[in-house]
Amino acid sequence: MPLNETARKAERERVARHVLDLVKERGSEIPWTMAMAESGLTRARFEALFADYDDLFDAVAQSWLAPHMAAMEEVLSSNLPPQRKMFEFFRRRFVISKERFREDPAYFTTICEMGAANLERVRSYVDLADHYLCELIAEAQAEGFFAGLEIDEALSLINQMVSNYTLPDAIIYIGDKLTEQKLARIVDTMFIGLSGEAGADASGVNTLKVAS
Amino acid sequence: MPLNETARKAERERVARHVLDLVKERGSEIPWTMAMAESGLTRARFEALFADYDDLFDAVAQSWLAPHMAAMEEVLSSNLPPQRKMFEFFRRRFVISKERFREDPAYFTTICEMGAANLERVRSYVDLADHYLCELIAEAQAEGFFAGLEIDEALSLINQMVSNYTLPDAIIYIGDKLTEQKLARIVDTMFIGLSGEAGADASGVNTLKVAS
Repeated sequence: MPLNETARKAERERVARHVLDLVKERGSEIPWTMAMAESGLTRARFEALFADYDDLFDAVAQSWLAPHMAAMEEVLSSNLPPQRKMFEFFRRRFVISKERFREDPAYFTTICEMGAANLERVRSYVDLADHYLCELIAEAQAEGFFAGLEIDEALSLINQMVSNYTLPDAIIYIGDKLTEQKLARIVDTMFIGLSGEAGADASGVNTLKVAS
Repeated sequence: MPLNETARKAERERVARHVLDLVKERGSEIPWTMAMAESGLTRARFEALFADYDDLFDAVAQSWLAPHMAAMEEVLSSNLPPQRKMFEFFRRRFVISKERFREDPAYFTTICEMGAANLERVRSYVDLADHYLCELIAEAQAEGFFAGLEIDEALSLINQMVSNYTLPDAIIYIGDKLTEQKLARIVDTMFIGLSGEAGADASGVNTLKVAS
């Protein structure tokens, strides 16, 4: 009997969580056949749940990233001032990752390696985070921040300036240098300083004139 | 006959450059015995030049990073305004790395992997770059920028905000998103926005009061 959509989703989630447990236990990515064998399901049932390994990986990534997604959505729907909203947008995910790393560094590192090895499969998560950040930028621009910048320009610059707080690798390598207080300073620095004017002093286009 | 200091230095540099050529040719780190065999020197002469593999690695790193060192020192001794000075401090090294990556991505990637695998051995370079950056921060603070921040705080925040332009890995992974214009905007954003005040709006310590 085919599963209805709700039962199918719950079953995918159950298997995905089990795969995450196996990753934790074995310290490595779990191949398709092992995931199937360990699922307790028949091959037919397993293949009805997951079209292929990529589809299984998607379910696993979705399960791992569910707290991040929930955090972003909660912040997006809040009514905080733009600076605090953007801070929380980054802070909550940073805290989740930092806590996960602290609890089990080896497991966290394995998961990061899986993500790095399957970058295309986590692309949709990155795209969604970018989409949400664009909303925050548009809201901030409506209040006069980031003036004179296209949303895409602001998006790229902001992503670059906070990348240590969004890339899990940074937590692994320089985690002790990353703090919520510093993130708050970086976010405020962007709100105060980032605009279409920024860049002229540094690159000298306004300060150096060639005598004519 | 033992070499005098100048000849010894020149000979170390010659061997180090040859090792870099071998890395480029073979696409991997060069072991001690291979470096010795390929050096054209007797074992005794080679061991008089390099105490051990770490010492050889130091010479190779020094050779690879010589253009970066020269760029930093040139900027330090210049009389540019603080924003332009800091921009150039990061820009020149970024341009060197970007150009090297463009010329030979595989070679550049191998060198980065060697650096990552021998982090402790490139530590002194990172420390020196930090030392120079502290000088730039102190000069900027003398002109009123980064007010209310300890030099070490400013150092950490600035390093975090520009890390995509200093970490070679970033050039490999998101090189097409890194531009001199964006770097200029980031530097100006820091000069305009970064101070001891920054962080209060984002973290909400000033805007949210608990009713008492």
